[in-house]
Amino acid sequence: MTASDVAAEDASQKAPRIYVYSPSGAVQDKTAFHRGVRWLKKSGYHVTLDEAVLARATRFAGDHASRVAAVHRAADSGADLALISRGGYGINHLLPLLDYARIASAIDRGTQFMGFSDFTALQMALYARTGRITWAGASLGVDFGATPQPDEITLACFEDVLHGVGEGTGWRIRKDCAPYDGLEIAQATLWGGNLAVLTSLIGTPYFPAIKGGILFLEDVGEPPYRIERMLVQLEQAGVLAAQQAILLGHFTDARVIPHDRGFNLTKVVAALRQRVSVPVLTGLPFGHVSTKVCLPFGAEVSLRVGAREAMLIWGHL
Amino acid sequence: MTASDVAAEDASQKAPRIYVYSPSGAVQDKTAFHRGVRWLKKSGYHVTLDEAVLARATRFAGDHASRVAAVHRAADSGADLALISRGGYGINHLLPLLDYARIASAIDRGTQFMGFSDFTALQMALYARTGRITWAGASLGVDFGATPQPDEITLACFEDVLHGVGEGTGWRIRKDCAPYDGLEIAQATLWGGNLAVLTSLIGTPYFPAIKGGILFLEDVGEPPYRIERMLVQLEQAGVLAAQQAILLGHFTDARVIPHDRGFNLTKVVAALRQRVSVPVLTGLPFGHVSTKVCLPFGAEVSLRVGAREAMLIWGHL
Repeated sequence: MTASDVAAEDASQKAPRIYVYSPSGAVQDKTAFHRGVRWLKKSGYHVTLDEAVLARATRFAGDHASRVAAVHRAADSGADLALISRGGYGINHLLPLLDYARIASAIDRGTQFMGFSDFTALQMALYARTGRITWAGASLGVDFGATPQPDEITLACFEDVLHGVGEGTGWRIRKDCAPYDGLEIAQATLWGGNLAVLTSLIGTPYFPAIKGGILFLEDVGEPPYRIERMLVQLEQAGVLAAQQAILLGHFTDARVIPHDRGFNLTKVVAALRQRVSVPVLTGLPFGHVSTKVCLPFGAEVSLRVGAREAMLIWGHL
Repeated sequence: MTASDVAAEDASQKAPRIYVYSPSGAVQDKTAFHRGVRWLKKSGYHVTLDEAVLARATRFAGDHASRVAAVHRAADSGADLALISRGGYGINHLLPLLDYARIASAIDRGTQFMGFSDFTALQMALYARTGRITWAGASLGVDFGATPQPDEITLACFEDVLHGVGEGTGWRIRKDCAPYDGLEIAQATLWGGNLAVLTSLIGTPYFPAIKGGILFLEDVGEPPYRIERMLVQLEQAGVLAAQQAILLGHFTDARVIPHDRGFNLTKVVAALRQRVSVPVLTGLPFGHVSTKVCLPFGAEVSLRVGAREAMLIWGHL
């Protein structure tokens, strides 16, 4: 064994270990998937692929039992990070079948869980059942495989999580948030994710009862009227008024049709601000976009809004 | 005044009075709207149009206050039937603003309310607040204006409601319902409507807590995975298991995409039947289709399923 072999083995042993699994939809874009895996390996991560990561049963990455087993294998993996291959749809119907104590125990042993979109359902349920923190952030295919080179900010946030050094995130304030200049929230539970997935859990045992929190929301492909209907449901269910702030990320592909006659996302947000007194901030760099920060679902955070920038701080987790 | 004038006036005084109003989306297809009005008049009904029936504010038939006022004018109209011009979206955000006692009082004085789709929200809220019965059935533009001649069954059911003579409805049983041959439910509260609208009220004060009911559901333009997610939410919120039967109407335009790989409505229903023990019947002639029966939301009904036909009976209301 040469000195460089020893050094390589040493580096490999220190390299963060990532376990990739598929709890939701079947991997469609295998090119992106493999490119993502190569990219992570090339970046020095130790990558393990779940045995069913490329499985398929109709639109899903396996039937209910198979995907539940995949989540449990991710929990048992001992990896530093359990990362979803992709979102889609499919976690909702797994929720009664998951062993939450097993996932919580994995987190306590140092395995962090990260994903977004459909993964919101698992984050909500796990927090409701065990209060454990998970990361709303990257998924393998979308963020490390869809393009030859990952987005720099996304990558920096991802690496911060893996190395345990991220302590917060900031974003530029838009004009519509001028009324919130000077807003300071000393402590709040950060939670949220995909709006459609989150609202699909209202009334179920998987919707955590978080009071005084900071709720972040994003979505893709939902027309403005549906975004409003979901926000109205959260409002009428008493969720919005119970929070200290709402952070809106990106709502991509929110198609406005001719019949909408100008009923767009701006109008939805303006109407929401008229109906609820809780601050509604826009511009959070999160959603179905290439530049996304990693957000610790369930962590205690502080928020400070200035004239130019908002700062969300969770300190050392 | 000639004898025929007297006869006409007499007939006009006896003619059921229909008040048409717009609580949801703005009327888009004015040709269909006017054709519907003409058709009702020609059929001998006395038709009154709400002053804001053709109003528009972006995609809505007026702002919140205007549409609330329109609902209240319909309640105060003294008509035999308050009929929506069309559905769309827009009742959810009106729900905290409606005077439910005023609508209930109108119903007690003999004004029946009918509509479907977005109207489900008003029916749910009114029942939750006052226990009053409303009709899931026709809307003006869709059912009396979209084609030169209304569908015969739709029309017969509509006339039964206006003349107070309908006592139930039946439909042909499909093969997938064979396991329910012989099912008899002696008494249950009938309720339901549009799946997306109904689930958008879960967790709010506008979702009635109906136990041992018969729940009917329909939708349009929702892909199978979304239909499943909504059914899963109703299931996980404990709604489905609390019913005696689920009746599925039409789920039109439930687009299956290549990625679904066969995950269609049939599979959604089969999976639902595996998860819940309550009977799930298909084939109810209701939904975004031309042939739709009128169903009394909130009425006590009985259900009898044979080898060839299901019969839903509410008797004389």
